[in-house]
Amino acid sequence: MSASETHPNQTEANQPRRTLTGVTTTGIPHLGNYVGAIRPAIQSSQNSTNEEDKSFFFLADYHSIIKCSDPKQVHESTKAIAATWLACGLDPEKVVFYRQSDVPEIPELAWILNCSCAKGLMNRAHAYKAAVDANNEKADVDPDHGITMGLFGYPVLMAADILMFNATHVPVGRDQIQHVEMARDIAGTFNHKYKPLFTQPSAVFDDNVALLTGLDGRKMSKSYGNTIPLFGEYNPQVDPEKQLRKAIMQIVTNSQAPEEPKDADDSVIFEIYKAFATPDELADLRSQFEAGIAWGDAKQILFEKINSEIAPFRERYFELMANPKELEEILMMGAEKARRHSRKQLDKTRRAIGIKPLAKLK
Amino acid sequence: MSASETHPNQTEANQPRRTLTGVTTTGIPHLGNYVGAIRPAIQSSQNSTNEEDKSFFFLADYHSIIKCSDPKQVHESTKAIAATWLACGLDPEKVVFYRQSDVPEIPELAWILNCSCAKGLMNRAHAYKAAVDANNEKADVDPDHGITMGLFGYPVLMAADILMFNATHVPVGRDQIQHVEMARDIAGTFNHKYKPLFTQPSAVFDDNVALLTGLDGRKMSKSYGNTIPLFGEYNPQVDPEKQLRKAIMQIVTNSQAPEEPKDADDSVIFEIYKAFATPDELADLRSQFEAGIAWGDAKQILFEKINSEIAPFRERYFELMANPKELEEILMMGAEKARRHSRKQLDKTRRAIGIKPLAKLK
Repeated sequence: MSASETHPNQTEANQPRRTLTGVTTTGIPHLGNYVGAIRPAIQSSQNSTNEEDKSFFFLADYHSIIKCSDPKQVHESTKAIAATWLACGLDPEKVVFYRQSDVPEIPELAWILNCSCAKGLMNRAHAYKAAVDANNEKADVDPDHGITMGLFGYPVLMAADILMFNATHVPVGRDQIQHVEMARDIAGTFNHKYKPLFTQPSAVFDDNVALLTGLDGRKMSKSYGNTIPLFGEYNPQVDPEKQLRKAIMQIVTNSQAPEEPKDADDSVIFEIYKAFATPDELADLRSQFEAGIAWGDAKQILFEKINSEIAPFRERYFELMANPKELEEILMMGAEKARRHSRKQLDKTRRAIGIKPLAKLK
Repeated sequence: MSASETHPNQTEANQPRRTLTGVTTTGIPHLGNYVGAIRPAIQSSQNSTNEEDKSFFFLADYHSIIKCSDPKQVHESTKAIAATWLACGLDPEKVVFYRQSDVPEIPELAWILNCSCAKGLMNRAHAYKAAVDANNEKADVDPDHGITMGLFGYPVLMAADILMFNATHVPVGRDQIQHVEMARDIAGTFNHKYKPLFTQPSAVFDDNVALLTGLDGRKMSKSYGNTIPLFGEYNPQVDPEKQLRKAIMQIVTNSQAPEEPKDADDSVIFEIYKAFATPDELADLRSQFEAGIAWGDAKQILFEKINSEIAPFRERYFELMANPKELEEILMMGAEKARRHSRKQLDKTRRAIGIKPLAKLK
């Protein structure tokens, strides 16, 4: 994996990295999330060699309400995502793992940053412009139809998420790079207007891992309905392993018969296998494709490979899902760790803008 | 005084009123603020006959940073405004008197309300549209030039100020009525989308008291530089009473000589006198105008009238300004009272949108 940074030379080589990753709590993690976000983030948090490096992981529940007004979904998703990350090996003792809404300093900072953010910057956000373009294609529809202030101002909340902890590196998909650039811009404006309190973050993106192919050959995404479940539904009636196998067996293939040589580079099965197999395993499956492996057999190989990697995590996942008290305790510990930073950072910020006690009280 | 309400019939006659008044902390109160806002608000809080009526008064320091990026000015203004309201008779035991920034639940609620506020609603805000119009008059200037997200989204923070305490009545100047209507709209959207948690407020405005004439005959306003100080500067070198007299002597008059009959209704002196005098006193001065009183003598009468009303407050004002610890203690008590409401209201709001603990601990 080779990741790129938008501003690679800004930080000294030996300066501690502060990596921040947020996950919006609107869905249940699928295999694409695992490969594209969860696994690399956890690996990267485990690989750090500098003792002073810090990783922040948070459940972005205050972002989720922009798109989701179903309280049950927000709540259930928060639970499933927390359990997933922990089950996959995130070490809450080593990293700072918290729920965004447990850090009230973040929305407070977001308001302060609103006052250092030009509205024009938000006008140019890709996501907002795409929504306006879609409205403009319809007759008699206001350009801002269906757009809330939450959707419009979302990059400011994201800037608060990042700047609160002076994150230096923010791993994101390509579509989110612009938001990290906006956080840089807002930090620059505040630092210039008041005092240099905020580190300007760099976006980190990796085009290799970002896209896992879905069942139908398009990018795996909840909105396409083409996902492979990671741990399966939390339903004692359904064997999660069988659920995974069933999904893999649904991968769309062409009508080539068994024994016909097959093109590995044109196969979704092979594409997904890449994300799990070693180079040797990959070469071996490629030979089998050339030798005319039956689609069903190729799917079985893919299933076994994926299952061998995630089965140990799956057990822990269901254990945590059945014991929300343990999850809540871990999140509370994370909130306390996060707030040790955020209280200080907000206090400095408030003083910089002139908001402080009129006198010291004991 | 006869005040109008925008939605007078919504509340039952015997339902307790909750009145909420905010003051932006960017200046030092002048006589126009006293007559237009401070005096009527304090009187109204003292006149309440229903034991369950509640009045909320707050120092809107998080609004002040929209327009003022001088931390010293924000801080000094907070102090002076707190001292002014208390000196003028606001009873912090009877009302809830607090600094907005001491209630972190407010910016948190503002974010939540962003997600129930159409961007189109903000596009139509008079203050925003006026700023855009001013930009459009210049060549090669972006319509949003100089407009921050703070200025654009300010009505959402104001909605949070109001809805947090389920205020029923919000006394405002005419230019602020639209913002209270926006708070109604946002409350309606949230109530419909989730559950009915927020009372829809009514704007209360009084065209008689809103405008005090300034030294030059225009509306008294800091931005015109035509104000009469209320208590004078906090400067032991300057006698505040002399300062008041000096300002009054600067009121612009015409060149009519002493003994010439004068038109009371065309005189700034008489205009300001109206805000302080009884009907009898007013009739008496009118006769003196007709009899040709000299401008200097009329100004002296005005000075004595104003001074007799505010001199007792002035003493207390300087006492509080010299003792910020007392001010801070009063504000901390107010914050505690305010947060008894705001913590509950935010907790209900969070639960309604799906943000709550995954399990009960302990």
